[in-house]
Amino acid sequence: MSFFSNFFSKRNTAPVAKDRLQILLAHERSSAQGNSDLLQKLQKEIMAVIQKHISIDQEKIHIKVDRGNDFSTLEIDIEVPQQDNIQS
Amino acid sequence: MSFFSNFFSKRNTAPVAKDRLQILLAHERSSAQGNSDLLQKLQKEIMAVIQKHISIDQEKIHIKVDRGNDFSTLEIDIEVPQQDNIQS
Repeated sequence: MSFFSNFFSKRNTAPVAKDRLQILLAHERSSAQGNSDLLQKLQKEIMAVIQKHISIDQEKIHIKVDRGNDFSTLEIDIEVPQQDNIQS
Repeated sequence: MSFFSNFFSKRNTAPVAKDRLQILLAHERSSAQGNSDLLQKLQKEIMAVIQKHISIDQEKIHIKVDRGNDFSTLEIDIEVPQQDNIQS
């Protein structure tokens, strides 16, 4: 067992090949009449901002929206393919 | 995702008189040579995007940066003064 555990533990500690960028937006409204589309509006524009700095494969973006009456969240999870794709 | 849930649950218990917008960015790098300034670059541009939609009092913005070798986070916490300040 020690051979296998060494073998796998070595790999588990190996550096991951990709970077990851996660963005979470949360909008908490004091009244239920709030603008529940704010996060949707921000989502597109924030993605555009990020794409100015990082080359993103569209398939590597995961977006999750959770919309409540007084609390909405938007999660964006991005796998950044190559470190050197980060542009200044 | 426990990181995110802790971040938000911490604040959920406080009574809120105003709207709030919270943004959390997390950048996980596969190597320590990564571009640690990515979040700083994104911060300014994301704030500009938000200010297109919301009138923000600069004093009501709280920003917290936590920079590590392979994992950096940026928290932006905004009090939105008036519901009707949210622009389309």
